[in-house]
Amino acid sequence: MKTIPQRLEQLRDRYYTELHEHVIPFWMKNSLDKVHGGYYNCLDRDGSVYDTTKHMWLQGRQVWMLSKLFNTYGAPEYLEAATLGANFIRKFGKTKDNRVYFSLTENGTPVFMQRKLFSECFYAMALAEYARAIKSDEIKQEAREMLMAIFRYADDITLVGRPVFPGAPATSSLAIPMILLNLIAEIAEPGEKTFADREEWCVKQLDKHIRPELKRVMETVKADGTLLDSPEGRLLNPGHAIEAGWFLLDYAIKKNNPVLKAKAFNMINWSMDHGWDVEHGGLFYFQDLNGHSPVQLEWSMKLWWPHCESLVALIKCFNETRDETYLNKFEAWTDYTFLNFSDPQYGEWFGYLDRRNTVTHRFKGGPYKGFFHVPRSLFLCLNQLDSLLQTTLIEDK
Amino acid sequence: MKTIPQRLEQLRDRYYTELHEHVIPFWMKNSLDKVHGGYYNCLDRDGSVYDTTKHMWLQGRQVWMLSKLFNTYGAPEYLEAATLGANFIRKFGKTKDNRVYFSLTENGTPVFMQRKLFSECFYAMALAEYARAIKSDEIKQEAREMLMAIFRYADDITLVGRPVFPGAPATSSLAIPMILLNLIAEIAEPGEKTFADREEWCVKQLDKHIRPELKRVMETVKADGTLLDSPEGRLLNPGHAIEAGWFLLDYAIKKNNPVLKAKAFNMINWSMDHGWDVEHGGLFYFQDLNGHSPVQLEWSMKLWWPHCESLVALIKCFNETRDETYLNKFEAWTDYTFLNFSDPQYGEWFGYLDRRNTVTHRFKGGPYKGFFHVPRSLFLCLNQLDSLLQTTLIEDK
Repeated sequence: MKTIPQRLEQLRDRYYTELHEHVIPFWMKNSLDKVHGGYYNCLDRDGSVYDTTKHMWLQGRQVWMLSKLFNTYGAPEYLEAATLGANFIRKFGKTKDNRVYFSLTENGTPVFMQRKLFSECFYAMALAEYARAIKSDEIKQEAREMLMAIFRYADDITLVGRPVFPGAPATSSLAIPMILLNLIAEIAEPGEKTFADREEWCVKQLDKHIRPELKRVMETVKADGTLLDSPEGRLLNPGHAIEAGWFLLDYAIKKNNPVLKAKAFNMINWSMDHGWDVEHGGLFYFQDLNGHSPVQLEWSMKLWWPHCESLVALIKCFNETRDETYLNKFEAWTDYTFLNFSDPQYGEWFGYLDRRNTVTHRFKGGPYKGFFHVPRSLFLCLNQLDSLLQTTLIEDK
Repeated sequence: MKTIPQRLEQLRDRYYTELHEHVIPFWMKNSLDKVHGGYYNCLDRDGSVYDTTKHMWLQGRQVWMLSKLFNTYGAPEYLEAATLGANFIRKFGKTKDNRVYFSLTENGTPVFMQRKLFSECFYAMALAEYARAIKSDEIKQEAREMLMAIFRYADDITLVGRPVFPGAPATSSLAIPMILLNLIAEIAEPGEKTFADREEWCVKQLDKHIRPELKRVMETVKADGTLLDSPEGRLLNPGHAIEAGWFLLDYAIKKNNPVLKAKAFNMINWSMDHGWDVEHGGLFYFQDLNGHSPVQLEWSMKLWWPHCESLVALIKCFNETRDETYLNKFEAWTDYTFLNFSDPQYGEWFGYLDRRNTVTHRFKGGPYKGFFHVPRSLFLCLNQLDSLLQTTLIEDK
């Protein structure tokens, strides 16, 4: 029987190896476009480029991740790679009125713009962390200006060109408050209170989606917080709810608020319990509250990112509660996730499995998968494990 | 060993039973909304309504199918049901400037509009066939006016609100010429030459997608007909290519043009041979020309409609060529399709299977599946079988 410090030590080694030997090198070797700037994010199993399109969600996220790695480990190659992307997105990624494209050609010509605000979010997140890396007030201000634009879009979605028809009920989407809460955490400096009102707004919005009477986190509810009886209104996205759970947990820890912590634990526990496929293992991508078939064709697939988010959530829950059931679960989910998603041959992780956990897509990067969920998860888990090890070793003495 | 007429007779009975006892009753019983007009198209396995949203693609298609059934069989219940939908879409479905919504609430309030032209196509198709049913010149003119609007949208997609960015190459999409060619066939009266120029334009456009050097039908090519090396440009959609194939075959038969017939046979044969999953059976939904994983998550699923279209294509090829290999294939694909998609318990067909042919979605109708591909396929196959039986019986004498 291993002691808890021994188990943490072993986990720390697995996460360290996975992040630093298995995942980061794949992207450092294959994704940097030193000719045009930015990153190739559509990488095949072996790292070769199968599409030169540059998707702005992933350009921004990669700038963020590389800046975070530089700000943590100090290796100049991370800063150099972050600069490659930061210069590219600043030069080509946005319009004069703070809209950010969805995709660009390899040389930066606009290809498509969504009627959503997520490209803008990842742009702001990227520049906030990059500004810390190069200690630039100008870029810090640019990130904050984008955040202000995002607040306006969140309050009036027609500003990003999305029409609102009279038959479409006014709804609240889980994605908006969750991403804003995380974005504020990324952009604000320690102790800064500038965004306190908006944080409270986010928590109130999230609360509409957290339903103790059902033990579920709803993806979409009516604006007044009542349930909407349609496929959209019955939709569950367990990975999304778990990610929102650890965003809320971070905020609750910052505010030292036990009520919010309890809400965050609920979001994570309900979604992991009900979202797990007892037949084949893995988290379903989508479910319907009442057991109908979700209309999304991919509902029963197992995607990499809900599992990445679950690992982060579990280790944070363990760190906060020291309840050993979280550690047991973290070990078990690490086993499932590494076994099924990680590619021992070429590095990085596959993104998409069918319900029976067979790989369906051989590529490592695509329009929605880049240098983000895998390294962020490994990086955050590693930080938690390091911090736990320091504490438990002290406690052991 | 059965004779060909015996085989045709047996197939005719299977198709008759499937259409008239197994499929039509499911929709006549469950989909008609006699309170608000129109049809419920989101029907669960047992026919119960799980979403009251009315999707205009399916409202229009159901009006067309019911009108076709009335115009063929004369049963007044079909006309009554067609009228229920025709009145609803005419009252609520379109704007003053000939744009058609994507979805409405059950009482006809607009919910969403796509930046595409397909809702308009199914609207025009519906009214053209309904006008024949009730012998209305006014409605016939309404269908033609919509067709003229569709021609304008096809020539300038920005008219439906789709922005064009400088990095997006000008492309030709298989969907546009194929649906226009079929729509003209549906709207024009026998022998009418009004749309001859546009038909020729459709054939020229289709020709850019038919690539003998690759033995493939490309879903998207550059506007100048050259190939585009990206996931979009390498995309194959075998079911779509097979459907376009029988649309072209219909036109080639009308024009008595052997060169076009040969092209149509190629489209069908290439796509059936290369699109078939040799491991598990069934047509893949999407493939990549060069064997990359398509970026669509659902690429390896087996959908009902590509198989519906294949059955129509095969029996038309047999009727045109009398080549027995088409009949053999028609029998084999009928076996696969009826076995895997048809629901013996509640009637109608399931729409979605995973790669191993396990049903993934229990519903019979959804945002993209209604009273259309299954009954159209069974109806057209039945007509072909009846016509073949008449000829072969005469030939046998």
